Amino acid sequence: MLKGIAASAGVSVAKVYKLETPKVVIEKKTVEDVAAEVAKFEAALEKTKKDIEGVKERAAKRLSEEELAVFDAHLMMAGDPDLHDQVVAAINNDNVNAEYAVDSYANMAIAMFETLGEYFKERIADVKDVTFRLKCNLLGVLIPDLTSIAEDSVIVAHDLTPSDTAQLNEFVKGFATEIGGKTSHSAIMANSLEIPAVVGCAGVLEAANTGDIIALDALDGEVVINPDEETIAKYQAKAAQYAKEKEELKVLKNEASITSDGHQVELAGNIGGYADVEGVLNNGGEGVGLFRTEFLYMGSKDWPTEEEQFQAYKQVLEGMQGKKVVVRTLDIGGDKHLDYYDFPEEMNPFLGYRAIRLCLDQTDIFRTQLRALCRASVYGKLCIMFPMIATVQEFRDAKAIFEDVKAELIAEGVAVSDDIQVGMMVEIPASAVLADQFAKYADFFSIGTNDLIQYSMAADRMSQKVSYLYQPFNPSILRLVKMTIEGAHAHGKWVGMCGAMAGEPKAVPILLGLGLDEFSMSATQILNARKQVKSITFEDAQKLAAECIAKDTADEVLETVASYMGK
Amino acid sequence: MLKGIAASAGVSVAKVYKLETPKVVIEKKTVEDVAAEVAKFEAALEKTKKDIEGVKERAAKRLSEEELAVFDAHLMMAGDPDLHDQVVAAINNDNVNAEYAVDSYANMAIAMFETLGEYFKERIADVKDVTFRLKCNLLGVLIPDLTSIAEDSVIVAHDLTPSDTAQLNEFVKGFATEIGGKTSHSAIMANSLEIPAVVGCAGVLEAANTGDIIALDALDGEVVINPDEETIAKYQAKAAQYAKEKEELKVLKNEASITSDGHQVELAGNIGGYADVEGVLNNGGEGVGLFRTEFLYMGSKDWPTEEEQFQAYKQVLEGMQGKKVVVRTLDIGGDKHLDYYDFPEEMNPFLGYRAIRLCLDQTDIFRTQLRALCRASVYGKLCIMFPMIATVQEFRDAKAIFEDVKAELIAEGVAVSDDIQVGMMVEIPASAVLADQFAKYADFFSIGTNDLIQYSMAADRMSQKVSYLYQPFNPSILRLVKMTIEGAHAHGKWVGMCGAMAGEPKAVPILLGLGLDEFSMSATQILNARKQVKSITFEDAQKLAAECIAKDTADEVLETVASYMGK
Repeated sequence: MLKGIAASAGVSVAKVYKLETPKVVIEKKTVEDVAAEVAKFEAALEKTKKDIEGVKERAAKRLSEEELAVFDAHLMMAGDPDLHDQVVAAINNDNVNAEYAVDSYANMAIAMFETLGEYFKERIADVKDVTFRLKCNLLGVLIPDLTSIAEDSVIVAHDLTPSDTAQLNEFVKGFATEIGGKTSHSAIMANSLEIPAVVGCAGVLEAANTGDIIALDALDGEVVINPDEETIAKYQAKAAQYAKEKEELKVLKNEASITSDGHQVELAGNIGGYADVEGVLNNGGEGVGLFRTEFLYMGSKDWPTEEEQFQAYKQVLEGMQGKKVVVRTLDIGGDKHLDYYDFPEEMNPFLGYRAIRLCLDQTDIFRTQLRALCRASVYGKLCIMFPMIATVQEFRDAKAIFEDVKAELIAEGVAVSDDIQVGMMVEIPASAVLADQFAKYADFFSIGTNDLIQYSMAADRMSQKVSYLYQPFNPSILRLVKMTIEGAHAHGKWVGMCGAMAGEPKAVPILLGLGLDEFSMSATQILNARKQVKSITFEDAQKLAAECIAKDTADEVLETVASYMGK
Repeated sequence: MLKGIAASAGVSVAKVYKLETPKVVIEKKTVEDVAAEVAKFEAALEKTKKDIEGVKERAAKRLSEEELAVFDAHLMMAGDPDLHDQVVAAINNDNVNAEYAVDSYANMAIAMFETLGEYFKERIADVKDVTFRLKCNLLGVLIPDLTSIAEDSVIVAHDLTPSDTAQLNEFVKGFATEIGGKTSHSAIMANSLEIPAVVGCAGVLEAANTGDIIALDALDGEVVINPDEETIAKYQAKAAQYAKEKEELKVLKNEASITSDGHQVELAGNIGGYADVEGVLNNGGEGVGLFRTEFLYMGSKDWPTEEEQFQAYKQVLEGMQGKKVVVRTLDIGGDKHLDYYDFPEEMNPFLGYRAIRLCLDQTDIFRTQLRALCRASVYGKLCIMFPMIATVQEFRDAKAIFEDVKAELIAEGVAVSDDIQVGMMVEIPASAVLADQFAKYADFFSIGTNDLIQYSMAADRMSQKVSYLYQPFNPSILRLVKMTIEGAHAHGKWVGMCGAMAGEPKAVPILLGLGLDEFSMSATQILNARKQVKSITFEDAQKLAAECIAKDTADEVLETVASYMGK
């Protein structure tokens, strides 16, 4: 039996499909006919773009807008004039073969990103993915086609690239990889696809061969290759039990999210675009608590027009059938970039020019988005929220622009709903601390725990050396959540949460007890959260929250919740 | 009359000394005798190092350890093997003249730092300063010697470099520069030297010539060249009035810092080393509220030894004659680097591996410092504090290492004071919010406002685009200060503040009203703060603080203080 990290829950027993990436050996050659070599390169580059588009298209059936964004990044990279020009220049000037020129370009780009530090890991993966495809196309090497899997299989691999995971079809019953952690790309995708995954499972690649039987237990992080019949039966029973529990959750789809003593909350989903709406509704979401509009901008070649945005917002509002949709205005900058805009060089981009700061500075961009939102507002129940609000002045300024845009549209004779709620993210410590003042102006709050925790702890969770300080259960974080909720309730306003913490089973009872009104999470987490809410009394949750908030450390809070949940 | 920014208070009427930097023109030449050219370069490099050492030595009479650190940076740069090797390689391989090779090296280094963003401005200034000296030495061009000024003068210049300001002697009665702002290097130095300065004074260089009379009003940011007699009399009267007010402050030197209704606080000074002790005592400091030990590390070629540190701490403790000295353990990382240690590449170093995070990870470094501190503890009244504490666990861990080191020394037969207080900086929002829990373990808190504000607002004040969010007077910051003080007082612990806010005249009455026990600031601010404390009642200060904390925005708080101070 091999041990690994259970990265996406579930149990499968199926045949092994061993993914072996073809070895590509690059030799340096002198070419005589440089024009022909350039033509060969350009044809391969075109094919590569088409291949990526094809993968994206197939993937679009199962993936969300957010998850598809990686292919936009790949397409951008394949279309980068720099790549084309440098490779062509190398062929022309040095008479080298195209695959050698591509390889040199890739090595240079990777080296450059590596000097920029660990944050650029994703970019490095992108370069490798795109240039690998390109080299395979140049050399006529076939890339394994995962979409061809046609019988129930568990994939065993060193690691899965974004392109790999995007191609997994319904026959793939899970995967086990040599490397990776709980937050690696492949783990996130497995969760999204709801297939079991064990990652960081050293030795699995050597132990397994295509056609072997594999028992994949991604509840306890165990993998058995060619198990005996008794073992197979054991894991099959475990799989059946897990499937039964999941099935039981489904009956909760249309039920209210209400505690056994009658305290009702709202469970909503986070989306990146229209493609994610169906998942929210299928999983019993009572609304959208966070629509991340940045994907509209990141997937575009230039600032999206008012009309493009209007169509996107209208589609989501209509799709949600009158259920509440909270749209976050452009949250770009920090670690999210645009190919058509140069952000200023900053030493600490997380503490820099981003989100509402950019929108208040470049109001044309902001006004275009607000116009599109106001126009779409008549197609559903729209709430708008501003990201990264740090001061009351900023909220007032942003709200004033909204009011101005709304009045402008009405003057133009355009219909605008008179029921748009205008709120803000609470993700900066200063806003949580001053929530009671903000609540005089904002219609609602949505707590963004990822950033709130990073800033409150002064720790970038992407930085390995300090990621231990990313502590959602630290009592200081619970206190900031409490201040936010109390500040809002004092003025009769509601509070949601749209960070990763909202869907975390250990956090749900505490947040409920603190008085959180709306929990917005990945669609696949909603039903489990509803089960939790329905099985607790509000009184008990309040007691638990009070107990947790009085602790010194995150570990003590986690022990308290564990002991409560173990009851 | 020319207008500029009043960057360091005071008024002077004196002769103009116009600082004109020599023009250095670099021509590319082919040298035949490369060995001779290399020898010429090496001699000039040696002379440059000696020149910098000479400047540092002269500057040491008037400047603090912190201010002298720039010369250590210059010496490091002049001694950088990279500089030597690249220039020698260029001479050897390309047969170019030394000054051309130095110039190329400088341009390359500057271009590299420029791609790294605005944060590296200081490094760029260092490269320019050192390579300029080097080129002048190669070409035999004399650099103006400001130490030669022998009659009362006001310097007029485009800008002053660190080398320039370091050489100002007692005849320099102020300066006016074309460029610069309130936080530019030259402004900071003028404040430290207590000479008036008007910066960002466009046109002054063209208007003034050496030998002209200049009236420099750095209270209102005005400059008049060759004023008539009436105007001279006006400014002389203003200068006399300002001098009188400063004189009046001096009588407060040995008085207690006590409000008119009997509430006593402590006014202390911030230091970077022993050189600053005299300034604190001369300005009536009741202790040292912050000893920044990082200068010991930054001015060193390798990790300073236990013995080196022991001597440094002992000297300060003895120098302070039994008055309290709060030593902050190593606060390195973020924007503070060491030449002998490679920090990990991080996307957001302010949210990264620094200060106590590094010390808890590399405990040998931490233990060496704690051993030196414990050994020095018998020479005065020592308080130790840990920077960047985010969680109770970190404080417990750091304190445990301290206890272990102390026990180790006692076991070795070394005398250690049994009266060392062990506290922490409160500069991370999470610690302020959880202050009452931390206060169970820490003997005292010292609020570091610079970082606390940056993290609470999620805004790097070095980033021009978001520096407007650096708002010490935002009610959210005042609330965090209040939580910290209340948390400490609930457990009978005291709270200091050692950030820039503690000495800011508009902040002093509010902080007093919030219950702050110790204010630690630049030595030159102490007497003015004492005057403020003595002229207010604690009751009024409490009312003012309560009023401020109930406001929505920083502007409203500032209006409230202004109207109070105007009474």
